Amino acid sequence: YLRGSWRPLERLIRRLHAADAAAVLVELPVPQVVDTLQAVSDLRHAAQIVNKMPLAIRHQIVEALPHKDLAELLENFRPDDLTDLIQALPDEQRDHPLSALDAESRSELDTLLAHDPGSAGGIMTTEFFSLPEACTVQEAIEALRGYADAEMVFYLFLTGEEGRLTGVISLRQLLLAPSDAQVADVMSGRVIRVRTDTEEEQVSRLFDKYRLLALPVVDDNDVLVGIITVDDIIDVIGESTTEDMLRMAGTRQSEMLTDSVFRIAGVRLPWLFAAFLGGLGATAVIGQYEEVLAQVIILSAFVPIIIGMAGNVGVQSATVTVRGLATGAINPRDTLVMVFKELRVGLLLGAFYGVILAAYGFWVYDSLQLGQVVGLTILTNMTGAALLAVSLPMLFVRLKADPAVATGPFVTTAIDVLGVLNYFAIASLIYGL
Amino acid sequence: YLRGSWRPLERLIRRLHAADAAAVLVELPVPQVVDTLQAVSDLRHAAQIVNKMPLAIRHQIVEALPHKDLAELLENFRPDDLTDLIQALPDEQRDHPLSALDAESRSELDTLLAHDPGSAGGIMTTEFFSLPEACTVQEAIEALRGYADAEMVFYLFLTGEEGRLTGVISLRQLLLAPSDAQVADVMSGRVIRVRTDTEEEQVSRLFDKYRLLALPVVDDNDVLVGIITVDDIIDVIGESTTEDMLRMAGTRQSEMLTDSVFRIAGVRLPWLFAAFLGGLGATAVIGQYEEVLAQVIILSAFVPIIIGMAGNVGVQSATVTVRGLATGAINPRDTLVMVFKELRVGLLLGAFYGVILAAYGFWVYDSLQLGQVVGLTILTNMTGAALLAVSLPMLFVRLKADPAVATGPFVTTAIDVLGVLNYFAIASLIYGL
Repeated sequence: YLRGSWRPLERLIRRLHAADAAAVLVELPVPQVVDTLQAVSDLRHAAQIVNKMPLAIRHQIVEALPHKDLAELLENFRPDDLTDLIQALPDEQRDHPLSALDAESRSELDTLLAHDPGSAGGIMTTEFFSLPEACTVQEAIEALRGYADAEMVFYLFLTGEEGRLTGVISLRQLLLAPSDAQVADVMSGRVIRVRTDTEEEQVSRLFDKYRLLALPVVDDNDVLVGIITVDDIIDVIGESTTEDMLRMAGTRQSEMLTDSVFRIAGVRLPWLFAAFLGGLGATAVIGQYEEVLAQVIILSAFVPIIIGMAGNVGVQSATVTVRGLATGAINPRDTLVMVFKELRVGLLLGAFYGVILAAYGFWVYDSLQLGQVVGLTILTNMTGAALLAVSLPMLFVRLKADPAVATGPFVTTAIDVLGVLNYFAIASLIYGL
Repeated sequence: YLRGSWRPLERLIRRLHAADAAAVLVELPVPQVVDTLQAVSDLRHAAQIVNKMPLAIRHQIVEALPHKDLAELLENFRPDDLTDLIQALPDEQRDHPLSALDAESRSELDTLLAHDPGSAGGIMTTEFFSLPEACTVQEAIEALRGYADAEMVFYLFLTGEEGRLTGVISLRQLLLAPSDAQVADVMSGRVIRVRTDTEEEQVSRLFDKYRLLALPVVDDNDVLVGIITVDDIIDVIGESTTEDMLRMAGTRQSEMLTDSVFRIAGVRLPWLFAAFLGGLGATAVIGQYEEVLAQVIILSAFVPIIIGMAGNVGVQSATVTVRGLATGAINPRDTLVMVFKELRVGLLLGAFYGVILAAYGFWVYDSLQLGQVVGLTILTNMTGAALLAVSLPMLFVRLKADPAVATGPFVTTAIDVLGVLNYFAIASLIYGL
């Protein structure tokens, strides 16, 4: 009876845009989603709906669908979407969908899976529209008529001998050209292209720089093997900024995809280890000043705020610098300007909070010396942290290293250890110990 | 003689793609860039080159160009690019370019500037191609032929009475339709549209969800007033993820654009104030335990590492959660699953580092009690920090607040204060003080 009761839903789903249908369905329990999907007769539509669902639910649906239905569904996936689906599955869950594919799709998938997921070959689709350059405008339009399937056709890529990429023509140019003209005479022969092993960050930079809608992918022999469309790149841009953020925090995108708690812990462990070593460094520094502490025990109460304020201003400077470098708002050549600016910002903020903390130390603990020590420490530590946090990413860029990684462990650890050292040095001096 | 010597450069620039020309020119001193630009006879090309340059250099060029040349250059900007250019200028530098505009461009610019820069009206262009729906396919193609200027024409938007948006037709549909058909019969009447005041995040979600290449913008009366193209959205996506990152660090995008050190400090101050209050809280907590500290002075040496490890694992959990929520990899409905997962990750990492630190405390300071205290504290603090850092963003999303903001001050401050409290509570217990 379940089937019957889901009829109205199925009718609704059929009329909705795939993205909306997916949004509706994910609100339901998985068995009912599977049921409804099986009742959708337009398999292309069903495939698009599944493709629009969040990863976790997609996996559950793939697991729950019987072999035959899964086979029909997967055949209607675009090759690049299918690759994404399989790639995101944990190894042990891949057998079920893989066995549902026919030999041809399987071999196509294997080719795509062979590329690094972070390369042009890993994000391209092999389902695209191209024509030999030796045809007329009229023939091109006829060919296009017969190819109803390809979405996002706005450029036709043209190939010469052995499938080598020779030119591109936009639908607009095709529309405006006389119908008996040779395509080769109307097309543009200078085509921006990438190789299958080009990194996806490079690909997304090209899209951004030249405002592209589609980019052809060629192999080592310049043979056209796939295209990347702008909608794939939107995902890449979101992902790569996300990657930047996660790298600064010492973790990785993969942690969202994998389910294993052990693997997540493994991903986070290394950066925490850098922080751990830094923390031990700070412990050792304080251990050296045990005598000072024994005489002015209250000094230890200010350790958290002194470390925290410098760390926070450091995170701010580092984030601004790393993002500015990534978006191009900051030019590596402007290092001196940036460093000088952060110096002044750090001094301003350090002076502001230094005065407040000095006042607090003086009034609450009734000690002018304590006020001087904590005030001076905040001023110098915040300034130093801002300087360090802007300089290290700039330095890493010049050394061709990733500034996002640099900012994580190096900056925070250095700020902690140097900050504590500076604090006790100032305290020894002012208390004359 | 300068002019003469720059001739070859001008010839090169003329043949390069605007993006490449901009990349070459920004390597030169500004006066020579201005000189070269003045020699480029294709003003549309010159405008595109300037538009591809980094903000800071663009501003210098605008300042350096004489009134007449600037007027010619700005007339060749796309309206939305011109708006961006003016908007990014500090107030005191706007007069020079504004006075160079003719009355018509000036009033168009005023209309665009009136929209919030973060809204659809603020990113749309008013230079687009639309047709009345009452025309034939042949007439539409003719009209298109006469409109060589508009780039990125892949959809024609169609309007009815009083310019109201009634439909859309892709170039592809136009190409495949019989030339004597009525456009109104071939077009799609269901057009996804936004109003001028729709927020840009919402716009970029629509582009992502429906894989759009262009989106029409209408006013309150459904009159078509502009379009947004996918290339504008690529910028928005990059910016909004950047905004997320900067908000987590307690700062804002505007800090990269403005030059004033005082304004930057003002932007960063509030979050630092939250951290400052948290730091004072930690100070007060330690102050309460002065007697414990006086007897076991070495406890203070472990404060930085104990705060640091909890803070770092907190940043990792929070970043993963905030980004996962933003990209849709995490569903707010999965709160319990996520919290349970972070609980186990926190326990694992806490156990790992707890054992190491306990061993360190035991061996280096030859005290079983110290080892127990620091080991137990790391275990509980890291677990608690992971829990807190996943729970707060999830809670903020449910309360319709921005999780990125939540993650900044709240999580870090709470972790600091609670962590120190827990440390001394455990220490009092184990040392029996």
